[in-house]
Amino acid sequence: MHIAFDADDTLWHNESIFNWTQERVAELLADWTPAEALGQRLNIIERRNLDLFGYGSKGFTLSLIETALELSEENVPASVIRQILDYGKAMIEHPVELLPGVRSTLELLGAEHPLLLITKGELFHQETKIARSGLADHFDVIEIVSEKDPETYRRVLASHDIDAARFVMIGNSVKSDVLPVVSIGGQAIHVPYESTWELDMVEHRGADEEGFFVAATMADVPDVIQQIASLGWNTLAD
Amino acid sequence: MHIAFDADDTLWHNESIFNWTQERVAELLADWTPAEALGQRLNIIERRNLDLFGYGSKGFTLSLIETALELSEENVPASVIRQILDYGKAMIEHPVELLPGVRSTLELLGAEHPLLLITKGELFHQETKIARSGLADHFDVIEIVSEKDPETYRRVLASHDIDAARFVMIGNSVKSDVLPVVSIGGQAIHVPYESTWELDMVEHRGADEEGFFVAATMADVPDVIQQIASLGWNTLAD
Repeated sequence: MHIAFDADDTLWHNESIFNWTQERVAELLADWTPAEALGQRLNIIERRNLDLFGYGSKGFTLSLIETALELSEENVPASVIRQILDYGKAMIEHPVELLPGVRSTLELLGAEHPLLLITKGELFHQETKIARSGLADHFDVIEIVSEKDPETYRRVLASHDIDAARFVMIGNSVKSDVLPVVSIGGQAIHVPYESTWELDMVEHRGADEEGFFVAATMADVPDVIQQIASLGWNTLAD
Repeated sequence: MHIAFDADDTLWHNESIFNWTQERVAELLADWTPAEALGQRLNIIERRNLDLFGYGSKGFTLSLIETALELSEENVPASVIRQILDYGKAMIEHPVELLPGVRSTLELLGAEHPLLLITKGELFHQETKIARSGLADHFDVIEIVSEKDPETYRRVLASHDIDAARFVMIGNSVKSDVLPVVSIGGQAIHVPYESTWELDMVEHRGADEEGFFVAATMADVPDVIQQIASLGWNTLAD
């Protein structure tokens, strides 16, 4: 069985850093707009910029600057732009903080299965975070991709000769880590994070109907893997 | 023989788009600084930001904004920041313009050898440009990397079971495409572009002493490949 993990908000905190930054920028722009309006406009601008910037902190910083310009009707002083830029850099430099249970779960599962890391975002920043996390040695394969759709998973699995029927993906995003994997015949375990980015939300019919598993935290993942194995995979165990 | 190509400024124009953008921003900032001073300050800021942003147009746009803030001592109006942001987006949306001889050379060499594309930069933007170029089908392998050092080339070659002694890299950057490949025992062909980014400049002792080849344009590359083959590789030809 090949077991793959998402990185941001699955192995380490990420969305919380984006949220914290957005709150600071809302304070900077309090003279022009209430915090809620900023969140709404930022979402619109991020969505509009996604085809240009892709995912990640540099695009987020550019979208924050654009939001400040729009909401202030280009009256925001240069000092506020400077502060947004500095917040953007602070996000990129932010220490990698592992989520509870990550290390023990990787050790436990890595002893019996080949592990993959499949993460989307900016190549350079993702590589930096993986290096800083100290977790790189747990993974047999590390793939940084620009989008997580069924086609991406198909390509990654094919390039490593992995059979989707013997593949489990674990992550916090139903949209990116769960549904596309289920759709190509793999198994998926959803491990919710404390918050979900608006652009990563998706409507779905729930774990049972969509055919995926849920673990409350990373520490619970090995038990769910056992459960998946007992559903028939144990006879094929490698 | 495996033949690999760099992308930006080797297959298509890139640096010229950055230069054009920088000239427009220099015009915007003409009240605060002469164009030459802008270029110098921008280089310093880009170098300082490289460990945070890596290579690419989003980081360049953020560095341009930072340069405008610094040179104006935070007196630049928001409307100028808006224009820099728009120039940054225009760079990302810029059509991919192939360099002369690219298509015929890829057709000729691709008929006899497996071709690779090895490019550094932002994952999402590089993928977009490769797709827009219409050249993707020429390549057996496409690798987008965050840095082009000997270790990166070693890793890429190993992951595709390619022997460095039977590998040729073609690109416009002596620093990124030529010297690291020669250092791991491969061959390299330098195809100069009309300009070189200051952070991509490197001192070297010339093609003969460093042991690499030079082609004036992409159209001359097949002849140089013939020349390399005649130096002994023809006996091993695949």
